[in-house]
Amino acid sequence: MSAGLGLGVPHHDGSELYVERATPRLGDVVPVRVRVPASRAERGVHVRVVRDGEPRFVPARLERADARERWYVADVVVHNPVTPYRFLLDEPGGYRWLNGRGLHGRDVTDAADFRLAVHDPAPRWLDDAVVYQVFPDRFARSSGHDGPPRGPLPDWAIPADWAEEPIGSGHGVAQQVYGGDLRGIEQRLDHLQRLGVDTLYLTPVFPARSNHRYDATSFAHVDPLLGGDEALASLSAALHARGMRVVGDLTTNHTGVGHEWFERARADRSSAEASFYYWTDDEPGYVGWLEHASLPKLNYGAPELTERMITGAGSVAERWLRPPFDLDGWRIDVANMTGRYRDDDHAHAVARALRARMAGVNPDAALVAEHFHDAAGDLSVGGWHVNMNYSAFTRPAWTWLVAPGSSLPFMGMPVPVPRGGGADMVATMRDFDATVPWSVTRHQWNLLGSHDTARIRTVTGSRALVEVAAGLLLTYPGTPVIWAGDEGGLTGVNGEHGRVPMPWGRIDGVPGAAGADWDDATFATYRALIALRRSCRALREGGLRWAFVDDDAVGYLRETADERVLVVLARDVWAGARLPLPVRAAENLYGGGVLGTGADEVVVPATEGPSVQVWRLG
Amino acid sequence: MSAGLGLGVPHHDGSELYVERATPRLGDVVPVRVRVPASRAERGVHVRVVRDGEPRFVPARLERADARERWYVADVVVHNPVTPYRFLLDEPGGYRWLNGRGLHGRDVTDAADFRLAVHDPAPRWLDDAVVYQVFPDRFARSSGHDGPPRGPLPDWAIPADWAEEPIGSGHGVAQQVYGGDLRGIEQRLDHLQRLGVDTLYLTPVFPARSNHRYDATSFAHVDPLLGGDEALASLSAALHARGMRVVGDLTTNHTGVGHEWFERARADRSSAEASFYYWTDDEPGYVGWLEHASLPKLNYGAPELTERMITGAGSVAERWLRPPFDLDGWRIDVANMTGRYRDDDHAHAVARALRARMAGVNPDAALVAEHFHDAAGDLSVGGWHVNMNYSAFTRPAWTWLVAPGSSLPFMGMPVPVPRGGGADMVATMRDFDATVPWSVTRHQWNLLGSHDTARIRTVTGSRALVEVAAGLLLTYPGTPVIWAGDEGGLTGVNGEHGRVPMPWGRIDGVPGAAGADWDDATFATYRALIALRRSCRALREGGLRWAFVDDDAVGYLRETADERVLVVLARDVWAGARLPLPVRAAENLYGGGVLGTGADEVVVPATEGPSVQVWRLG
Repeated sequence: MSAGLGLGVPHHDGSELYVERATPRLGDVVPVRVRVPASRAERGVHVRVVRDGEPRFVPARLERADARERWYVADVVVHNPVTPYRFLLDEPGGYRWLNGRGLHGRDVTDAADFRLAVHDPAPRWLDDAVVYQVFPDRFARSSGHDGPPRGPLPDWAIPADWAEEPIGSGHGVAQQVYGGDLRGIEQRLDHLQRLGVDTLYLTPVFPARSNHRYDATSFAHVDPLLGGDEALASLSAALHARGMRVVGDLTTNHTGVGHEWFERARADRSSAEASFYYWTDDEPGYVGWLEHASLPKLNYGAPELTERMITGAGSVAERWLRPPFDLDGWRIDVANMTGRYRDDDHAHAVARALRARMAGVNPDAALVAEHFHDAAGDLSVGGWHVNMNYSAFTRPAWTWLVAPGSSLPFMGMPVPVPRGGGADMVATMRDFDATVPWSVTRHQWNLLGSHDTARIRTVTGSRALVEVAAGLLLTYPGTPVIWAGDEGGLTGVNGEHGRVPMPWGRIDGVPGAAGADWDDATFATYRALIALRRSCRALREGGLRWAFVDDDAVGYLRETADERVLVVLARDVWAGARLPLPVRAAENLYGGGVLGTGADEVVVPATEGPSVQVWRLG
Repeated sequence: MSAGLGLGVPHHDGSELYVERATPRLGDVVPVRVRVPASRAERGVHVRVVRDGEPRFVPARLERADARERWYVADVVVHNPVTPYRFLLDEPGGYRWLNGRGLHGRDVTDAADFRLAVHDPAPRWLDDAVVYQVFPDRFARSSGHDGPPRGPLPDWAIPADWAEEPIGSGHGVAQQVYGGDLRGIEQRLDHLQRLGVDTLYLTPVFPARSNHRYDATSFAHVDPLLGGDEALASLSAALHARGMRVVGDLTTNHTGVGHEWFERARADRSSAEASFYYWTDDEPGYVGWLEHASLPKLNYGAPELTERMITGAGSVAERWLRPPFDLDGWRIDVANMTGRYRDDDHAHAVARALRARMAGVNPDAALVAEHFHDAAGDLSVGGWHVNMNYSAFTRPAWTWLVAPGSSLPFMGMPVPVPRGGGADMVATMRDFDATVPWSVTRHQWNLLGSHDTARIRTVTGSRALVEVAAGLLLTYPGTPVIWAGDEGGLTGVNGEHGRVPMPWGRIDGVPGAAGADWDDATFATYRALIALRRSCRALREGGLRWAFVDDDAVGYLRETADERVLVVLARDVWAGARLPLPVRAAENLYGGGVLGTGADEVVVPATEGPSVQVWRLG
């Protein structure tokens, strides 16, 4: 195991055991704590706080000590909106730094410093949320029938039978229309509640010229194919009546080429709308997202665009948060590129304006970025609350759980997902987690896949590994996000191919029903793990301390002031482990088996294959 | 050795072998090359370029191959002012990333991506410069005598004999005045030229209430104690007549409490000057740098401050670059904090304005930041050209070369410098180097110490290790900066204590002369290493490829298109190494010995103790 990791290493994170006030105000003094195993020999501990660009050292006080560990506390003055800090352990062999990546015996950059940020965190309801992502064309038809969709379809649409396998690439990928609609979703809310999720995240519902609708032709109304404005209002009301929430999907980076703004812009280059886009001398005469002529990129240098999209009365961002639609937040498509083009960089201004405007309408609205990559610079500026956490969660989880020999690439990558050991997964998670404050980490939208990736069942190749993946998702810090259908083991080799219509006939147990295979055992697994998370505050709000990391198994502690939970995940046959964790008793919360307990250690039982063990330690 | 390091690992850096145009313009297409040892088994190579926040993959073409290595080239579109890129090697065991920290078998953040930046690099003359830092009160007296300084001294001054040991802490530290002056420096320029340096960096010369003058009472004239404006003009003219240059030191973060601006501000709170400072309700009524009441902090929210300091006609920043003073640049004191206070952050705006204003007066002016810590975010924004490179050079070099058992702390640290192996030093250098473009790395102001640190002779504890330190300084990428007196082995346990007056009597060989010990052998070492650097373009402009890293010895290659130089530094007895570097012949440039050469490898000879070997490989 890495020297910077494990129960022999000092630990700090931003959770309640270590930081009393995770979201301070400017000027506050925040006591921060660090626990040091008794096996170490530190002569003293300091906290190093960066203040106006200059580090200061504050000696930590020994607060309590027992045979197993020493706790130190030091005061951090929150002098800047984002205040970085790390710990210095004065050890006989030379000082050690403790930062978000672990313990280091040499100087390191500030990139992985812990951070206190003054920006409001994501709304409280995200503390407990489990999100369910639905792609409207593929979830459910209100008409109930299974053939090709009835009624008039747009000229670009290719009608598909509900049971048809989605095209994964090439012609038809964006044109296959299955005819799912918002009323269909509303009729199936019992399924969501049976599963245990409480927040619906809907990919776009605005009219467009594709089945995914990320090429909106208007932001002014809901696509009539989905049932129009009334259907959204009805779905939202039905969700709220059940105590559930709904988050929409807004494309701020670009519009469709058929968007009413773009049409006006092209018709009249002196129009206000013409300032909304980037025009060029080359074909097609404007800048498209990733060079797609169908997706003209928006230019936030245009004040009127910012008003119409974000800040003005009746702006897109605010209108759909108001009755009768009452969206509880936005997921922002291509947030990483929004406002960025060549030497323009309005990205932070756009994100901050969005958050401020949304908070003005609904202080509990959530703002979630889509940033597949390194979002470090974008998540601490008072803009996006959290990110769709592909970098710090999905990708590392995939590398650990991918089927040996799989040739699946991660979205956008030209090579297959490599298979790595537990240490690789954990190091990557820590690298990315360490770039954002804990107040962000604990609400990040973690996911095992989405409409943009292969399905986790296909990635792992087995039901047993899906259980391990779901075990990780539902016991890890952050907001679990479940891509509709993963809970039944649906498959797909890429995002498009995985947009499988929900096989309701099979789900409902109709004999001989058509559609994709549905796995009731996987559903039961997800359901149990969601219930487990709901039953256990430590799994939602506790810190994250790695207990051990092997190639084929990892273990971590989720701890609050009053609860300590040990999660052990194995991807294969594994011999078990002895951990220096003295406990009086252990309650098995998931996975069965017996944990050996004693005054000096616990003995984690071996497993015969992929497994999830969750223990509440007394 | 780390898997990410050494001759078995693919290599790229920003030097001419790999990047043809280190400073492109926006929109340029820049071919970038990577060399891959033949021992690897890549199926292909891609470059990953971040563009508007989104990575794109560009396949690399195999350009040439021989029995030892393969060279690939790929086109990077410089789409943003700073364009990050790294390489992806598609290897059978899973892909590998190559970034500025080396090779990685798992996903990593973008923090260490290579970068192309469109900002003009430091002026051309820094390509070849060797800088010599002088603290005016301690270098030379024009009067020549050795007793206490004659003539009227300010009320705060404590006169000191030239041969007196400087007070290292407590009362008198900032008040001891030895009476060095600018005419004294001018009289001693032969010493600089004998040593081989060509650029004088002068710590502040403005009037102040301390011997260090970082508490200016005016920026309008040179301190009469130093000889006034005329003496600076004369020194500058004398330097330029010799083909040398001179860089001044400007305190942009704060003034002295006795500054004319601050006096006006206190006298009249409605004055323009009152807006230059931060006022508080607590004692002393204003914000001081690091809470020093003697150093009121400047507020760049005040437009008139920016004008007077930077942008206006006759501003401080520009006036001293013009005749008759003709400074060739500024070193900016406390650059890391300048413009930063609580939720104000004008730092990048100040740095950019300074660079633009200076370039308007003299396109060849250099702008050097003082940032002791992590300057990553401040060095790629078109502001500071380079940094005083404590983080990526001084600190890691000290950890490798510090005397075992030393209790010296690095400036500002509450614990001693730890002693680490070569791998620790190199990893820290790479961590910090990787955060800035090569165009910055290759001009960074590297130093073994300064008026703010202990002396390298005291840190290492031996002449032999000073040679190793100087060997590193003068063969490493960047601008070598020599703290006056280090070349004669002067000592000092901290910055203040190390501000030793130059012992001219001893330097000149006057029998029985007073003053600090002077070591002619160390002078000869520095002189030879400076001459070596001047004789060898690869040492100034070549890339940096680590050949091996042991605890007690490290080796690296400095390579241009036409020259290949191997540097081997040992801090102790060392057994030598065999390196897979086929060469026909090797020329010993420094250190003596015989390098075993052959078609498959070179054999680096063992050493009996600290040593520097420099070989030109044919």
